[in-house]
Amino acid sequence: MEKLSEGFFDSSMNSREHAIFEVGIKLAAIYHIMIGIPVTNEINIKKKIADGIIAAISCQPFVKKVEIGIKDTLGQLGQKFDKEHEFDYTYVSGKNLFAKVEVKYDNWIAVGYVEWVSDLNYPLMYIKELREDPETEQKTNTECP
Amino acid sequence: MEKLSEGFFDSSMNSREHAIFEVGIKLAAIYHIMIGIPVTNEINIKKKIADGIIAAISCQPFVKKVEIGIKDTLGQLGQKFDKEHEFDYTYVSGKNLFAKVEVKYDNWIAVGYVEWVSDLNYPLMYIKELREDPETEQKTNTECP
Amino acid sequence: MEKLSEGFFDSSMNSREHAIFEVGIKLAAIYHIMIGIPVTNEINIKKKIADGIIAAISCQPFVKKVEIGIKDTLGQLGQKFDKEHEFDYTYVSGKNLFAKVEVKYDNWIAVGYVEWVSDLNYPLMYIKELREDPETEQKTNTECP
Amino acid sequence: MEKLSEGFFDSSMNSREHAIFEVGIKLAAIYHIMIGIPVTNEINIKKKIADGIIAAISCQPFVKKVEIGIKDTLGQLGQKFDKEHEFDYTYVSGKNLFAKVEVKYDNWIAVGYVEWVSDLNYPLMYIKELREDPETEQKTNTECP
Repeated sequence: MEKLSEGFFDSSMNSREHAIFEVGIKLAAIYHIMIGIPVTNEINIKKKIADGIIAAISCQPFVKKVEIGIKDTLGQLGQKFDKEHEFDYTYVSGKNLFAKVEVKYDNWIAVGYVEWVSDLNYPLMYIKELREDPETEQKTNTECP
Repeated sequence: MEKLSEGFFDSSMNSREHAIFEVGIKLAAIYHIMIGIPVTNEINIKKKIADGIIAAISCQPFVKKVEIGIKDTLGQLGQKFDKEHEFDYTYVSGKNLFAKVEVKYDNWIAVGYVEWVSDLNYPLMYIKELREDPETEQKTNTECP
Repeated sequence: MEKLSEGFFDSSMNSREHAIFEVGIKLAAIYHIMIGIPVTNEINIKKKIADGIIAAISCQPFVKKVEIGIKDTLGQLGQKFDKEHEFDYTYVSGKNLFAKVEVKYDNWIAVGYVEWVSDLNYPLMYIKELREDPETEQKTNTECP
Repeated sequence: MEKLSEGFFDSSMNSREHAIFEVGIKLAAIYHIMIGIPVTNEINIKKKIADGIIAAISCQPFVKKVEIGIKDTLGQLGQKFDKEHEFDYTYVSGKNLFAKVEVKYDNWIAVGYVEWVSDLNYPLMYIKELREDPETEQKTNTECP
């Protein structure tokens, strides 16, 4: 499949670098879409929120696989946060959001993560794995992974 | 159930007015969370995205019911937009987002909408219905509608 | 000035209730737009971010005045958070965002706030003041407050 | 300057690739933060909104320079959109947002853009330029460009 956007890019970019770029875009998109969404600690509610954004991002160009999770918010003594009154809920933040995105561009796969890193006190986005995949076929347009 | 937040409000506000305030908050929350989410015209993808935000908002204080839809994006001649190349998708915007939220505060119900109004060229948020509900019981904390 | 949107609303809504609805919309818009914006504790940076959103919201229908602040993020012992390494910054959250919005609809003014309330462990949106303003003139279209 | 995050990354990633990754993150962050912000065609309002997000992103790790613009929204016959009634404004969308971000990682500079591409009918994010910069000094922590 031709890539209609390729003419816009610096011509020195190779497929591995395109995969790296795309995974950066997808991680930041997930993060900024989800931050602030109200959420309870009910596992079904969290799963539905995550499934919606997984569906949205999975259909974007070059995306092979998306995993998203919203961790339990812990109370001040580390115990699980429980609803005790009508305002007793929380929202998606840099501290409880986790996502993993796998992007494929030609024969290169980039696997990126966003998650809270306590040592940095920061929701870090990083690429954990870069590898070649011998199967060079791209996903077709009508199919979402 | 006591309302922990009531002391913060202007004491002249009645239950009907609280319901009006809460429905305004929820409509704008849905709108600003969802705008920009990438979406295809696949009905299943749209449904999953909508279901995730419905779950998130349904668990917020005073919310009784939420409906959300993402309308098909039409092409330039009004035909349904179809994926023809890898960038052939769209995103949630003021033009294709529809939501209906029902809020209950004590015995008052406010039903609000956000949807594109062609005559105003604007994604209007409005309250279509205000009514008293004789059943004064609030939802409990652990239950999402 | 005629209000083009009035026909969409429940006809029993009065001007005071319209003001209440609009202030709810604006508070939630500010909150969901700003949550997740990266920010340092530099006062100039915070001011520019706040000024941008103040400008955006001030031009919306019925808005008279907007104040927005991003409080300093405190470290674990309560001291002011300082940049010590390249990831040493934070982002706008429910805990550090403060906003005050004044809306006028006909002769009614509603003043709403969003701010973190420690007792509720929650970013509460509330209306602190509702009052009539004898000056019934609306702002004109081309003017932003 | 040590990079505290480097241990998280695939160890085969070089500085050029890190720059590519970071510019992808920043472009998507700008896009998803800004989409949906209400805006008029007043040049001062647009400038303030852009300046706020420029300030926010400029302080992020590895960012050297940020430019953001919000193009005028055109009416149906291509004329400039003008405010004629109280709902006569628009909001930031994929069609009117333009941003350019320059990232530096060690000695590599990546210059990325997001802008509407009519041929693709899509807000494309792309890297226009990749180059080495002999001046290898990173910005310091306390300084925002």
